[in-house]
Amino acid sequence: MRVYDVIDAKKRGETLGEEEIAFFVREIANGGAQDCQIAAFCMAVLLNGMTDEECFLLTREMVKSGDAAPRPRAEGVYADKHSTGGVSDSTTLILVPVLASLGVKCAKYSGRGLAHTGGTLDKLESFTGLRVDLSPEEFERQVEEVGGAVSGQTEKTVPADKRMYAVRDVTATVDSIPLIAASVMSKKLASFADVILLDVKYGDGAFMKTAREAERLARLMVSIGKSAGRRTLAAVTDMNAPLGDNIGCNAEVNEALQILRGEKQNRLSELSFFHAAKIVQAISGCGKEEAFAAVRESVASGAALRKLAEIVSAQGGDGKEVYGAFPLAEGRHIIRAAEEGYVQMSALALGRACAALGGGRAREGDTIDHTVGILLKKREGSPVQKGEPLAEVCHNGNAEEGIALAESAFCVSDKKIKCRPLVYAFFGGERR
Amino acid sequence: MRVYDVIDAKKRGETLGEEEIAFFVREIANGGAQDCQIAAFCMAVLLNGMTDEECFLLTREMVKSGDAAPRPRAEGVYADKHSTGGVSDSTTLILVPVLASLGVKCAKYSGRGLAHTGGTLDKLESFTGLRVDLSPEEFERQVEEVGGAVSGQTEKTVPADKRMYAVRDVTATVDSIPLIAASVMSKKLASFADVILLDVKYGDGAFMKTAREAERLARLMVSIGKSAGRRTLAAVTDMNAPLGDNIGCNAEVNEALQILRGEKQNRLSELSFFHAAKIVQAISGCGKEEAFAAVRESVASGAALRKLAEIVSAQGGDGKEVYGAFPLAEGRHIIRAAEEGYVQMSALALGRACAALGGGRAREGDTIDHTVGILLKKREGSPVQKGEPLAEVCHNGNAEEGIALAESAFCVSDKKIKCRPLVYAFFGGERR
Repeated sequence: MRVYDVIDAKKRGETLGEEEIAFFVREIANGGAQDCQIAAFCMAVLLNGMTDEECFLLTREMVKSGDAAPRPRAEGVYADKHSTGGVSDSTTLILVPVLASLGVKCAKYSGRGLAHTGGTLDKLESFTGLRVDLSPEEFERQVEEVGGAVSGQTEKTVPADKRMYAVRDVTATVDSIPLIAASVMSKKLASFADVILLDVKYGDGAFMKTAREAERLARLMVSIGKSAGRRTLAAVTDMNAPLGDNIGCNAEVNEALQILRGEKQNRLSELSFFHAAKIVQAISGCGKEEAFAAVRESVASGAALRKLAEIVSAQGGDGKEVYGAFPLAEGRHIIRAAEEGYVQMSALALGRACAALGGGRAREGDTIDHTVGILLKKREGSPVQKGEPLAEVCHNGNAEEGIALAESAFCVSDKKIKCRPLVYAFFGGERR
Repeated sequence: MRVYDVIDAKKRGETLGEEEIAFFVREIANGGAQDCQIAAFCMAVLLNGMTDEECFLLTREMVKSGDAAPRPRAEGVYADKHSTGGVSDSTTLILVPVLASLGVKCAKYSGRGLAHTGGTLDKLESFTGLRVDLSPEEFERQVEEVGGAVSGQTEKTVPADKRMYAVRDVTATVDSIPLIAASVMSKKLASFADVILLDVKYGDGAFMKTAREAERLARLMVSIGKSAGRRTLAAVTDMNAPLGDNIGCNAEVNEALQILRGEKQNRLSELSFFHAAKIVQAISGCGKEEAFAAVRESVASGAALRKLAEIVSAQGGDGKEVYGAFPLAEGRHIIRAAEEGYVQMSALALGRACAALGGGRAREGDTIDHTVGILLKKREGSPVQKGEPLAEVCHNGNAEEGIALAESAFCVSDKKIKCRPLVYAFFGGERR
């Protein structure tokens, strides 16, 4: 078998077999396949598609290419959650301590922000001294001892994905549903979580632009998870407007802390509690009401906030910071409604605005400014008077582009806006 | 504009504009595009296609990427011919001297053999000392002074094609009709020929397996030539069986010399004379009968053979060798009919057999043995008795694989075989 033959078969629209996929992924990982061959393969997959079975095999072989995290010796059920990325999505910061405080062990692997989207690891680094590069052993130990850990995966976790992603990024082959599914799920399956909740975003601020596409991706990932013997749940959720009210690292952490302290309720708290309750239900088998009540109680009692402090401390940070707030950039610009009506906004433009202010990265490895951001004063669909503040931009100067982008993110409609449901669809969770 | 955007547009099935194509080809030539980006683009073109206009623009920009041969100062009409490659196709060795002896100036750029196909440059090197690496100036001067020259193009002729081809070769993107058309025509348009005859082969021994595919490629190349202001003719011809009776460099040159000496008539002489007459007609405007008579007379009078001697001498070879024969390998194996019936053969298997004997190259740069080859004793469709010789394999030892492949190329049918016409279609030649 040659790398060439696998590309050729996919080009001709054939369904690849187990042996071909295993061979191809091995050649990606060991360098036998050239970048141009990976690119041709990815474009052929993007245009000719893959069956669910092919996609599962691709994912499984990608996992095999690396060093999957070892399962802790202690018995237990482990949970993980993954979001496909959006703007002002800090559910992890809320979900992990809530679940851990309820005794659900969270082994959460996260990523960094790219383009207009934020990343959990960046946000966590708002905490002074907190490490997000736990070794597999440190990660495993912390999940056991504290009940939760949030860390990045290493280059060795799924090296085949690392190489494929670098090629896809420059060859316009990122937006292939099977390739996205294999990339996400290979990283999820390289961890030892038994229950995986996937939050697949759709809308202007997400990679999937329509609910239909997002649902296709979600169903494919659930099918992969199921084939791999993991209980996999998926929610298709709205990302046309930002999820929370704050955009930017420190601002988003502050908002998550407010929610954990019971000081704030919004779509971010609603979705975080929804996900937490779904995972509690899946693991304990309890009813919906009971699960929601437990989640709410973990916040009301302060148990979730205390658990976050424990996790932060365990990862080398200062746990006391959960009781305070992180500083925001001092430069301010108020965006006001140009006329009376109902607010509309673009999550994509707001994410780009935050990146332009220095709060996001154009390419991997760029450093980011944690203090800049945008604070929403109105939500999508809210009625406003002319001149009323819509948002506040926090910047450190040199902010013309970011402010212009943020201004462009809003418009005011004279017609009432029909608000989209937060959760468009939810499914999965069956055992294999 | 970014290389990424051009790939993305083609992936989405858009028609690329002049500016996008020019930009992309420049980036290929100047190294701004990565190999993986070229591969993704080629796969997207292969699967999503290109309009004739896009393909013309791609070809034109590829020509611009290099140093096209300068047009001679002397007035005149220059002819060129191109075959898409086959087995035992030595028409160039016959056509060029025939035309040159009739006063039609032939500026013939040729290539080397690859995989199962032979190449004119390799065959010409059977002549002792003959050079096929003429500089553009030497080439131009020889065409003017001798009336014909056959040489290779340099890496600088169409560097964008050189790079694209190297990528296509390993990424299963060779068999795209628009990419083949652009590759072939960029090299043809980088020369100064006014009349271009394209011989597009179809069948088991050709790159195009069906007459329909070959016709599509031929029509696209004629349209590109016409858009570029060249008179472009195309023949779609049969390559299910080898064209001539001999396969292998020296053996094929010997056969061409026999034809030029009037000692042999077969499908190779038929097609060579057909092409020569079509070019004479296109240039002089004379009738079909008159053109064929002139071609036959150039052979019968010995003028064509003398012209070949002149061309060989001009390129540093020994012109007297056209009156002799080149040696064949001394090891012999006779392939015999296993039963009574009608002969069937595979050009592909025979081409591969010759390559396995050492007469072809698996990759660019391999050296080849000029003396090995296969001499057909029967043609496709001929009646045979059991045990009659079908072909003679000439080898230099270590020939098990080559002999086995050659044996496998034949079968004997108990039913009469319907012979395919040599020329399936002929068209083009209109001025723009």
